Amino acid sequence: MNEPIQSIRPLQKARATLRPLLPPTPVLESQGLNALLGCQVFFKCENFQKTGSFKARGARFFMAQLPPRVNTVTTHSSGNHGQAVAWAARETGRRALIVMPENAPAVKMAAVKDYGGEVHQCAPNQAARESLMAQLRDQTGATFIPPYDHWDTIAGQSTCAQELLEEVPDLDCLWTPVGGGGLLAGTLLAAKYFSGGMAVYAGEPEGADDAYRSIRSGVRVSEQTPDTLADGLRTTLGKRNFEVIKQRVADIIPVSDADTVAAMRLVYERLKIVIEPSCAVPLAALRLARERWAGKRVGILLTGGNVDLSQLPF
Amino acid sequence: MNEPIQSIRPLQKARATLRPLLPPTPVLESQGLNALLGCQVFFKCENFQKTGSFKARGARFFMAQLPPRVNTVTTHSSGNHGQAVAWAARETGRRALIVMPENAPAVKMAAVKDYGGEVHQCAPNQAARESLMAQLRDQTGATFIPPYDHWDTIAGQSTCAQELLEEVPDLDCLWTPVGGGGLLAGTLLAAKYFSGGMAVYAGEPEGADDAYRSIRSGVRVSEQTPDTLADGLRTTLGKRNFEVIKQRVADIIPVSDADTVAAMRLVYERLKIVIEPSCAVPLAALRLARERWAGKRVGILLTGGNVDLSQLPF
Repeated sequence: MNEPIQSIRPLQKARATLRPLLPPTPVLESQGLNALLGCQVFFKCENFQKTGSFKARGARFFMAQLPPRVNTVTTHSSGNHGQAVAWAARETGRRALIVMPENAPAVKMAAVKDYGGEVHQCAPNQAARESLMAQLRDQTGATFIPPYDHWDTIAGQSTCAQELLEEVPDLDCLWTPVGGGGLLAGTLLAAKYFSGGMAVYAGEPEGADDAYRSIRSGVRVSEQTPDTLADGLRTTLGKRNFEVIKQRVADIIPVSDADTVAAMRLVYERLKIVIEPSCAVPLAALRLARERWAGKRVGILLTGGNVDLSQLPF
Repeated sequence: MNEPIQSIRPLQKARATLRPLLPPTPVLESQGLNALLGCQVFFKCENFQKTGSFKARGARFFMAQLPPRVNTVTTHSSGNHGQAVAWAARETGRRALIVMPENAPAVKMAAVKDYGGEVHQCAPNQAARESLMAQLRDQTGATFIPPYDHWDTIAGQSTCAQELLEEVPDLDCLWTPVGGGGLLAGTLLAAKYFSGGMAVYAGEPEGADDAYRSIRSGVRVSEQTPDTLADGLRTTLGKRNFEVIKQRVADIIPVSDADTVAAMRLVYERLKIVIEPSCAVPLAALRLARERWAGKRVGILLTGGNVDLSQLPF
């Protein structure tokens, strides 16, 4: 199934499929942070998710939709999606071929291998990634597991906001980061069908602000040269993702890497949890807009915690 | 009340007093860590406790036992106990005078002030700390809140293991660090009265191994020159603490700072939580002894998460 999501059904199906497979992630609050931000913030902690990021949701739901005869899957990824696909493949008894740029951190390659994935290294550019993956598909008949631009992936990612809304139903607004747009599109659809008109905002790195520029111009920016330490958000917005986002997002707020690092530090200090830089972007964006949300109930999706500890920016 | 704990009552009283005041801290598990360690480990996360460490328990229970006429309290601390006392004083409407060595990290002084405590700086040695505190007591009539060597403090700290045992009743063993011995003594008493003979072990830094040497010799080592990065465990074992520990502890295992750093890194990578070096010591000790616990159910009290992020040892 890869048809636009135009009813509550595909979202309910994703939630029902993943409910027995992925334990709910915790929602944390900090009185100190609330005082500092001037609003009540609920942090949905996907850094505690299987594989260390929300990507496990989309990959696992996608994999559950595949017919059993599909015994090999593939994707290209320098980060969390590769780990999620390797894990979801192992969970469903499949072989996973993960194409990774040869300059990907050793720790990320090791994580893919830990989940039983086969790492195939290529030159660090988009063309090399796609060409090696095409070659592997030709050789093995592997099925491609898309990182964000697919309705099943979007439905899978929507379960994060669904879970949060089940636990904290009366949020005034909800914040996510935006890279390829899988999580943001899923969250917007979850807000449409499972909330009473909650506004959804996204934070985006200034150095990879294609989603911001796309909604401002109304035309999807399909290429960019990203320059940001938020490595999970260097991707370009997907087509299907843009369709949803341009209709529904309340706003996208670009943030500097310095603001992202400050927000990341706040989370380490106050929530005592480990997150990756990309994950701090929506908190950085909320801080820029916080006067508007004074006294309100605000949700933030903390997307992941896979960070190279020897490269922490503080 | 400062009489030896010889029945279940004082422990029950501490638990009943703190139950409505301190929400239970989460217990985390990681399949990856279980596989690595060869046993099932339950991490009781006091880094999420109020003030960022278990010290809030002892300080808050002690403060609840004080008569209302006591309106000023004091202690000396370079770390978590100072924050806990400042917080507990504010919660009970009291003034807190916290003596801190002038070389204590600025971030720790700021935390005490954030909780409304008054910081009084002194020279960085024990004599200066005690003399300034005595002077403040003379001037203000402040009541001293002891960090570990008091039965009410020990009863307060026992609530951490009590809470864990309520959630995970069938542990084969439980691990804590040992510095002054408040948490270890409280945990030993909780194990005596609330478990079916669960063994309690402690990890201790090699560079501050007074508790290890005390139980080996049977005589409390009352002075040492600590040399360890586990700053919360540089204190010397208390008298009352030693009474309990020498009778009941299964063993104390000295660990190197290198092993502590490796354990700390594992917790950041696998559990995705922020802990301080002292907090990683029992995991380091368990790793040294892990063959003995293969396949067993093991608890670890993770004591705190107040770490200077610009000084992380990795």
